[in-house]
Amino acid sequence: MADRRASNKTRIRRAPERAIYDRSSIYDIVDEALWCHVGFTQNGQPFMIPTIHARDGDNLLLHGATSSRLIKHVQEGHELCVAITLLDGLVLARSVYHHTMNYRSAVLFGKGKLVEGGGERLEALKTISEHVMPGRWDDARGPNKKEMLATAVVSIAIDEASAKVRTGPPNDDQEDYQLPVWAGVLPTRQQFLLPEEDPRSVKKLIVPEYLKNYHR
Amino acid sequence: MADRRASNKTRIRRAPERAIYDRSSIYDIVDEALWCHVGFTQNGQPFMIPTIHARDGDNLLLHGATSSRLIKHVQEGHELCVAITLLDGLVLARSVYHHTMNYRSAVLFGKGKLVEGGGERLEALKTISEHVMPGRWDDARGPNKKEMLATAVVSIAIDEASAKVRTGPPNDDQEDYQLPVWAGVLPTRQQFLLPEEDPRSVKKLIVPEYLKNYHR
Repeated sequence: MADRRASNKTRIRRAPERAIYDRSSIYDIVDEALWCHVGFTQNGQPFMIPTIHARDGDNLLLHGATSSRLIKHVQEGHELCVAITLLDGLVLARSVYHHTMNYRSAVLFGKGKLVEGGGERLEALKTISEHVMPGRWDDARGPNKKEMLATAVVSIAIDEASAKVRTGPPNDDQEDYQLPVWAGVLPTRQQFLLPEEDPRSVKKLIVPEYLKNYHR
Repeated sequence: MADRRASNKTRIRRAPERAIYDRSSIYDIVDEALWCHVGFTQNGQPFMIPTIHARDGDNLLLHGATSSRLIKHVQEGHELCVAITLLDGLVLARSVYHHTMNYRSAVLFGKGKLVEGGGERLEALKTISEHVMPGRWDDARGPNKKEMLATAVVSIAIDEASAKVRTGPPNDDQEDYQLPVWAGVLPTRQQFLLPEEDPRSVKKLIVPEYLKNYHR
């Protein structure tokens, strides 16, 4: 996907000053997110499904059971929409009207196809695994033949994309700054707590480094 | 919306043991979330937009500029899909194949209509505001006539809905429990940090109680 101006499909209509169309800023949002919503249409009815993704260049990789409805629909090459939103803060203005949120939101458009060939599929599964938790792939038991047969990977070529980002304090009407109303931002983020070992673990193992230092 | 079994639209196909169709469990997810993705179809093309929502009984309230594309599309009564996903943990199994996430995910289907009448609209805006931050509505300056004219509210009747929930440690193949691979869950949650006062504040005000104790 080349950097480009907005098309009719991706043009941000509301608050266009928050719109972003350059590829690397959009991909930063895609890469930070651990999951996405995939939107598709069947018989005129919109559907959405949450799933894990990973980006491979200008493609978005998804995986699932070979029999999964989402995977089947994607591999048939229908038009797709993928949305990712990261919440960064609640913005408290002096007036109700100017309340908003700080966020980074990306919307991608494209069509998918099946990733064929065992080698390519294994590589794609590794890309997805390493996207979620770098270092885990080499530590855990790799997929066996039966598991590989049960797992499909699809690749969505990102044809068009846009992002919308808001940062910073509230923007109030000039006369409202005098009001005795606390205003500012309540920052928020995805927090990762201490790892909880599986109670069914047979032997005591130390927590791996990649897990101890995990963050997005 | 009455509690009901799955329809063809809402039936969870993958991992059906994680499916939830009872209203109160689904609404708990809707009520905890601060934002949702609204999915719709225009000329066969799926679109998704992130927005703030609030539930009012069996209806989902959204608001926006009167000229907003989403609001216009919703008030025209088209089929909509609303997706909400809350991430609770990364699940690390001994095998790559059994890695998953702990999550609570809800998908709602319905059609919207415009909330007419100033009084009803003001009440709906208060419901949305209080959903995001209880207590804020009475503290901040309320909407004036111009702001009310610029703001539309739509109400989506939740016709059908389903949720999918995964909790707990990984489920590995029996023979894999012997492997020397750390397994368990990395819990995650939306964390709220200390409020940051607007640097443009004219006077020093104490942080309101509803903000100090904010949590989801």
